[in-house]
Amino acid sequence: MHPHRYFDPDPATRAIATDLYARVESLPLVCPHGHVDPKMLATNEPFPDPATLLVIPDHYVTRMLYSQGVRLEQLGIPSRDGTPVETDPRKVWQLFADHYPLYRGTPTGAWLQDEFEGVFGITERLSGANAMAIYDHLEACLARPEFLPRALYERFNIAVLCTTDAAGDTLEHHQAMRAEGWGNVRPTFRPDMAVTLSHPSWHAEIDRIGAATGESMATYASFIRGLEARRAFFKSMGATATDHAVLVPRTERLADADAAATYARALAGTATAEDADRFAAHMLMELARMSVDDGLVMQLHPGSFRNHNTRIFDRFGADRGCDIPIATEYTRNLHPLLNAYGNEPGFTLVLFTLDETTYSRELAPLAGHYPAVVLGPPWWFHDSIEGMLRFRHMATETAGFYNTAGFNDDTRAFPSIPARHDVARRVDATFLARLVTRHILDEADAHEIVVDLSARLVRKVYRLGE
Amino acid sequence: MHPHRYFDPDPATRAIATDLYARVESLPLVCPHGHVDPKMLATNEPFPDPATLLVIPDHYVTRMLYSQGVRLEQLGIPSRDGTPVETDPRKVWQLFADHYPLYRGTPTGAWLQDEFEGVFGITERLSGANAMAIYDHLEACLARPEFLPRALYERFNIAVLCTTDAAGDTLEHHQAMRAEGWGNVRPTFRPDMAVTLSHPSWHAEIDRIGAATGESMATYASFIRGLEARRAFFKSMGATATDHAVLVPRTERLADADAAATYARALAGTATAEDADRFAAHMLMELARMSVDDGLVMQLHPGSFRNHNTRIFDRFGADRGCDIPIATEYTRNLHPLLNAYGNEPGFTLVLFTLDETTYSRELAPLAGHYPAVVLGPPWWFHDSIEGMLRFRHMATETAGFYNTAGFNDDTRAFPSIPARHDVARRVDATFLARLVTRHILDEADAHEIVVDLSARLVRKVYRLGE
Amino acid sequence: MHPHRYFDPDPATRAIATDLYARVESLPLVCPHGHVDPKMLATNEPFPDPATLLVIPDHYVTRMLYSQGVRLEQLGIPSRDGTPVETDPRKVWQLFADHYPLYRGTPTGAWLQDEFEGVFGITERLSGANAMAIYDHLEACLARPEFLPRALYERFNIAVLCTTDAAGDTLEHHQAMRAEGWGNVRPTFRPDMAVTLSHPSWHAEIDRIGAATGESMATYASFIRGLEARRAFFKSMGATATDHAVLVPRTERLADADAAATYARALAGTATAEDADRFAAHMLMELARMSVDDGLVMQLHPGSFRNHNTRIFDRFGADRGCDIPIATEYTRNLHPLLNAYGNEPGFTLVLFTLDETTYSRELAPLAGHYPAVVLGPPWWFHDSIEGMLRFRHMATETAGFYNTAGFNDDTRAFPSIPARHDVARRVDATFLARLVTRHILDEADAHEIVVDLSARLVRKVYRLGE
Repeated sequence: MHPHRYFDPDPATRAIATDLYARVESLPLVCPHGHVDPKMLATNEPFPDPATLLVIPDHYVTRMLYSQGVRLEQLGIPSRDGTPVETDPRKVWQLFADHYPLYRGTPTGAWLQDEFEGVFGITERLSGANAMAIYDHLEACLARPEFLPRALYERFNIAVLCTTDAAGDTLEHHQAMRAEGWGNVRPTFRPDMAVTLSHPSWHAEIDRIGAATGESMATYASFIRGLEARRAFFKSMGATATDHAVLVPRTERLADADAAATYARALAGTATAEDADRFAAHMLMELARMSVDDGLVMQLHPGSFRNHNTRIFDRFGADRGCDIPIATEYTRNLHPLLNAYGNEPGFTLVLFTLDETTYSRELAPLAGHYPAVVLGPPWWFHDSIEGMLRFRHMATETAGFYNTAGFNDDTRAFPSIPARHDVARRVDATFLARLVTRHILDEADAHEIVVDLSARLVRKVYRLGE
Repeated sequence: MHPHRYFDPDPATRAIATDLYARVESLPLVCPHGHVDPKMLATNEPFPDPATLLVIPDHYVTRMLYSQGVRLEQLGIPSRDGTPVETDPRKVWQLFADHYPLYRGTPTGAWLQDEFEGVFGITERLSGANAMAIYDHLEACLARPEFLPRALYERFNIAVLCTTDAAGDTLEHHQAMRAEGWGNVRPTFRPDMAVTLSHPSWHAEIDRIGAATGESMATYASFIRGLEARRAFFKSMGATATDHAVLVPRTERLADADAAATYARALAGTATAEDADRFAAHMLMELARMSVDDGLVMQLHPGSFRNHNTRIFDRFGADRGCDIPIATEYTRNLHPLLNAYGNEPGFTLVLFTLDETTYSRELAPLAGHYPAVVLGPPWWFHDSIEGMLRFRHMATETAGFYNTAGFNDDTRAFPSIPARHDVARRVDATFLARLVTRHILDEADAHEIVVDLSARLVRKVYRLGE
Repeated sequence: MHPHRYFDPDPATRAIATDLYARVESLPLVCPHGHVDPKMLATNEPFPDPATLLVIPDHYVTRMLYSQGVRLEQLGIPSRDGTPVETDPRKVWQLFADHYPLYRGTPTGAWLQDEFEGVFGITERLSGANAMAIYDHLEACLARPEFLPRALYERFNIAVLCTTDAAGDTLEHHQAMRAEGWGNVRPTFRPDMAVTLSHPSWHAEIDRIGAATGESMATYASFIRGLEARRAFFKSMGATATDHAVLVPRTERLADADAAATYARALAGTATAEDADRFAAHMLMELARMSVDDGLVMQLHPGSFRNHNTRIFDRFGADRGCDIPIATEYTRNLHPLLNAYGNEPGFTLVLFTLDETTYSRELAPLAGHYPAVVLGPPWWFHDSIEGMLRFRHMATETAGFYNTAGFNDDTRAFPSIPARHDVARRVDATFLARLVTRHILDEADAHEIVVDLSARLVRKVYRLGE
């Protein structure tokens, strides 16, 4: 890997980017949003094998193989309908290696290269020919104590790592780590299941919340108290934020009696699809109200049409690379919520999008006005070199730097965390260098801003200390 | 400020941009659309104080401060509900200076820097520490005759300045300047209030038009005659254009009887929201028809959700930085209008947008076909270095250069006018230089085009002479 | 024309682009989608005159002239309502030459310049002054055998040229060329007229299909058999693909009885607009099913609001530069089709768009997941230097290189074919060079990819052999 990778080729710009990057390259990683399994760090058991670590669970990796005709069965992805799948991780690895050129020019390719070299010391490019040799090397690494999860956590220089957890979760692994006094791993309160009346596990989740809180959950008022109690518990376990995934970010407060009747219909199993939509829109209002009250930062991730490919979902379940974005509207949808809470001094709403057209049209204007609104980093498909550059170029002039929330890796692929932060730091250095060579920004200001973007803003927005 | 600011860092491109910019840097400013108060130039009274001139009325400046927790009360913005606000302009200035780093990387920051240095001779960067010294300097400037409005107008080398005026406006200040024979300040006919049946001041505006024209305004026919008479009066005061702000650019001709009945309901106070929408869509047709008849250039500014933040609107009124764009559709909405009038040789329709996705998808194709359609420059949030580059890169290949309307500053911040034109000229020089170094454009052609973009096109489109 | 045209000015990037371009500059042209008239190559008659060859039929050329006030009557475009139009091709040419600066910065300008120089050896820039001299030169060229259509086909180094043909077409010219054994010209099955119940020529087209296949076409089942028979015939004439133009890419399978009843209403002349929409959505499903069965690659071109300018359409007919794009939605509209057929190993669906916002939001995610989905090159208004760069920058990170379909020229302007491919090859070389100098891509990989993009992918996707 070239030390100047991702910087612009213009020599003057590259020199400034190199200098800016050097100022943040080694800063600790602040990870306010992601999907690492807390059990991994709580139990600290060795990673199983290279394919199970790097290929099988990573839908970025497997979707690209699938798009080119590799079947998920061949990749050893566990089926839920009993379909037999490949069980030999070496065969999975070989198939992955045979198709490695597919990742050319993609962020997945950049992350993998960085993981191979940075985490495992592999400088050779993976190919069909060297697949087994590299597998052997990786396998040997994973058997050594310095590749245990906690050793990597420390080697990666992670300052804080936030997980994402259902409202009804026991947080047993967070409790265990806190009891042990190890690390800085924090839960995030994600009540999607509990507020989605049409979710197949809604009743079960309601029961879990009831069991955890002692609430009967028999009425809307009890439901609200249950959520509030769970938020308090999450806070006691270190949470500083909540997260909410919705298809459309509709917000609308229902009258209490209406909300209560809707909730009652859901309990009775008679809620309609429109009930579910209205209740979800109402609950975004109510969850914002709770954030105003308890200070948990509210994150909103709208616009993903989940499980678009029914055949894959039926056989392999969710998170298999079949989620496709839709156009998303914020100005009108968030109008009720922002009018109710957007001026509250203690409230922070971090907005994400899969629709890049909203950066300059809706999100930057909202963030550049409402005290509560902050822009999250480019999300998912846009968490990439070009995607991050587009975000900065499109959002900065209207939102400025200080209404943005730094970077988050949003990943379940633990070994990719340093690579992802490194890409973000390099891209921010590139963007700032472009402003400096065009005399839009002073170099002294850029020195300060590059640290803001890599470290200060994320801590400030997510209330994660200095 | 660096003399090569905003140009690309590539030495070859920068050299060409520098040359191109030098060819237009000192050309007179043609300002066909903006919001300067004509009273300022008619009375030529000294500007009050630095905060009242540069901070308090500029919603670009204050929205950014508000987004970071500064309250508008602290900024001395007059309230309309009796809430007390800061009255000491020095305190307002200090607060502004304390937060000056918020403008890093924003066009507001670039304009302010240019105003400070270019208009007031301040080369030091504003900060909390030097806030009062700079205030003193500005205050001293403003007391001198060379900083009176007309002196600045002349120093700025303004060739023509168009204001924006309600249909019922007396244009008393325009009349005074014309009587006096000073300057080249022209009104623009903006009948939004008169054609918006739901506007709280609709009845009052109708009465003003009636009083000004001698029309009874008791019927739709009289209303139309009133508007036509006002247009004729605006023309006699030098107007060459009209302007229309709508949320959605719906156009649809109603039958005369339908329009008349709708107007009658509005007079009777019984018009519905759908009446208002249909009447507005109808009036865009009718105003286009009038433009075909009287030759006034028609400008359309759609897509701003005004006063999104109700709490701010209730306390401080309109134009406080709370207007948020929405996605805008032109192809279908303008179909009736363009089919009726888009082929008329004498008709010019200047289209603006807050939705950059329409540049390449709808606006450039429309401008590259209909004789009447011309593209206005990037508007509001997009009147910025990156925004202007995006516009040129996205619109030029389909619309060409000659279906665009040059630059307009669209500002109420009088001292920022030279800075705004200068940014546009630098960006156009940069864009053209990029085409030259990539051998898309000959250098000789670029010499001609840079003058077209800075001077010729705006005069031609807005019929402002040679 | 500069040998390094369209490459980035940065010397390192330009050097790599120059090298990459040299590797593909002379590769044969593979033309899987376009609108060249097969009769031209079957009969091989001399081209009539310069204006009739280069100006009159090219709506890219004439729309720009029209947008600046030149009337189509003056350009000799045949009217269908009896309006007299210019008949002297020299007068048309002079008018075109007088307005030649309008094409500055446009792809039309780039293509014309390349045609003039590359095909006709004209290095002087066209202008009003040299218009007749250049006309004379072109006229003399066209009289010579080396400018006959087939001579140009061979000089252009065309490996395969696919035309676009209605389902009811006799393909007589394709048959003639195949019988003669000349060239590699293939039809493409485009059944738009047959599946659009509201099309004015629907009945006539149904009759043509019936006559060609011996089907009665009296029932929906017979209609389907007729289409299938025509597809088989097209395949026998060398077709490897179908093409479908729709305004909205809605897909939805109707029950057979519903489809049959709708078809019966259409035959009886009682089908409604909603019938037509539902039937079109159903037929996309059914045509995909046929592609799964017969292996013809399915192309989808949605989002063009055809004949937006009614006055022009009424007088001059279709394809006069009056088609304007609309926003297009794929994620939800294609959900039924992709769920039914998107996982089929033998099925290929090439998606095009006029809405660039869908590249990163919808199209790249769909192509990066579904085995069937491949992205076509930037279409129509976006088939341009900047448009192609935007496509690569926005789509590559999510879709990769190998879910894209190479280039197609999509043109009826036969002499522009080499210019169009050359622009695409230069832009791809530029894009790849940018990745190499930023160390996103190895130079060795780029050597391979540039050939993939220019030659291998298009042959693979369209099943056009090695």
